[in-house]
Amino acid sequence: MASNVNRQVLLKSRPEGIPESEHFHIVEGVVPTPVGNQVLVRNLYLSVEPAMRGWVSAVKNYAEPVPIDGVMRSFAVACVEVSCHPDYRVGDIVTGLFGWQEFAAVDAEAIQRKVSDADLPPSTALGVLGLNGITAHYGLLEVGQPRPGETVVVSTAAGSVGSCVGQIAKLKGCRTVGIAGGPEKTQLCTEYFGFEAAVDYKATDFSQQLAAACAGGVDVYFDNTAGPISDAVYEHLNIGARIVVCGTASVANWDPPPHGPRVERHLLLKRARVEGFVVLDHPEYEVIALKDLADWVRAGNLRYLEDVLDGIEQAPGAIAGLYRGDNRGKRLIRLTPA
Amino acid sequence: MASNVNRQVLLKSRPEGIPESEHFHIVEGVVPTPVGNQVLVRNLYLSVEPAMRGWVSAVKNYAEPVPIDGVMRSFAVACVEVSCHPDYRVGDIVTGLFGWQEFAAVDAEAIQRKVSDADLPPSTALGVLGLNGITAHYGLLEVGQPRPGETVVVSTAAGSVGSCVGQIAKLKGCRTVGIAGGPEKTQLCTEYFGFEAAVDYKATDFSQQLAAACAGGVDVYFDNTAGPISDAVYEHLNIGARIVVCGTASVANWDPPPHGPRVERHLLLKRARVEGFVVLDHPEYEVIALKDLADWVRAGNLRYLEDVLDGIEQAPGAIAGLYRGDNRGKRLIRLTPA
Repeated sequence: MASNVNRQVLLKSRPEGIPESEHFHIVEGVVPTPVGNQVLVRNLYLSVEPAMRGWVSAVKNYAEPVPIDGVMRSFAVACVEVSCHPDYRVGDIVTGLFGWQEFAAVDAEAIQRKVSDADLPPSTALGVLGLNGITAHYGLLEVGQPRPGETVVVSTAAGSVGSCVGQIAKLKGCRTVGIAGGPEKTQLCTEYFGFEAAVDYKATDFSQQLAAACAGGVDVYFDNTAGPISDAVYEHLNIGARIVVCGTASVANWDPPPHGPRVERHLLLKRARVEGFVVLDHPEYEVIALKDLADWVRAGNLRYLEDVLDGIEQAPGAIAGLYRGDNRGKRLIRLTPA
Repeated sequence: MASNVNRQVLLKSRPEGIPESEHFHIVEGVVPTPVGNQVLVRNLYLSVEPAMRGWVSAVKNYAEPVPIDGVMRSFAVACVEVSCHPDYRVGDIVTGLFGWQEFAAVDAEAIQRKVSDADLPPSTALGVLGLNGITAHYGLLEVGQPRPGETVVVSTAAGSVGSCVGQIAKLKGCRTVGIAGGPEKTQLCTEYFGFEAAVDYKATDFSQQLAAACAGGVDVYFDNTAGPISDAVYEHLNIGARIVVCGTASVANWDPPPHGPRVERHLLLKRARVEGFVVLDHPEYEVIALKDLADWVRAGNLRYLEDVLDGIEQAPGAIAGLYRGDNRGKRLIRLTPA
């Protein structure tokens, strides 16, 4: 270690809605010393993801809120610097909730996994070969249960989960329609990620575009947005449709919840199902998904984009940028040792 | 046959929302003569049910709209008067979509089933041992999948489907909470149908009543209403909750759909599922359900109430009465041969 400084991003105040850079501050701590069986890791890449909005919110959620003046919760891929645990050796590449900081001393149980796909870049462990890919795999295949020939519609289709969903659906023989914001992203959907059609939700003729792209109806809708985008998709459900609720990116604030057209009539007429899931409930699924995902990446059947910001000082503003749609692909913060 | 007159209720005009007596007229036709392999049936009881609102609506639905000047579609239990088909004999009791009329000449395929539970009153074939009971059985057990010890909440709990759902849930070891309108119906829920708690959605403290009755959360919500009643229930979902969408009685008009709080956040946080079903999709299930239901009725474990109106002239106003909540139990029109 070239320095004894551990720069950390702490939560300064709780945002109403989307966290901005002003809600965080960067402090210089001291690199911790592992105690007991702990492992000292040096973070290589920090993850930035939409779920972070929920993690800093005081509103009831599936994880405890990050405390004020606590290190921002984050997945990271890291290199083991010091190990007091027999399962880990110096130089191992590991992932876990190591936080927005340069170094973390963690119990072995806090390590999510050791990255074994050494032929693939470590950053992929936070995206296509990490939570995003596993979320897409589980949500589409286990919750959505697509059958060959069916039409699968995905919102935030150019994003790191959505692009993965579209490609997996295509690998499973489905027809895929992506929904994204603006011509650059819809082009990315069709030309880079192989969606058969892509629809621009920012276009004035969005509903007509969607109707044209879904002329045969929608069998699976992988919903990353909720809101008016979903309302438009519900108009085209086929009998027996499955809606996978993965995220609600289009809703800035759930307290109180926004109102929209009630959906029960669609669900009755179409004998349709809407189901929410949280992939962290299914840790046993990780191995199954990662095997498929790594094989598909190696075979060139699963493409991904990374949006890499350099330096921990980029972290505080990085979540708001996601919600503005600034990123192209999985947003990461790359840390370079001082 | 004492008379050659066949009184029929025809649809006069298409209502916006709930059909009232002014939307029908009664005409005197002639008793039809069965042709080919047809069977002539004399209706004993006509059914009145909330779904009829959908059947007369021009809005897309799971059945073709009843044509203007057509006989109102209705399930009925009837006695075979003339049979040209080897499977049916004079005196057989049968059910089917025989319509709001005194006589119908029907193809054998139009007969839903021959009533074999001769020890039980024929009227039950339209309620607890008919579509209502089968709907409750399928919806609760196949869609809702309750486990012993779970809390099952039912809306329109004093109604013919709701009361059946509550009793089946109790037979399966669940804790049951009924939602009904007014003290008379909530009392019916707890004292006659055996719900452990009943909540009055018309009371000013409805949400507090519901919170108290569902202190341990809701595992299965059997939704017959949609609307604000459902909004209140969604606040109490447990992790892994299942919402069975069976009907939308609280919504007078779906064109355009009313707005309400969006539910995606609940579904994500609670990993919950909402699913619509139409029991007519599952004709093979009828035998399974009827066996259970008849056994439970005979054993005194499944109680039912009938709200019998006398004479076909009562039919036109009978649907609106359902939506006003005039009935106590399954609403039927009893026809007495002239």
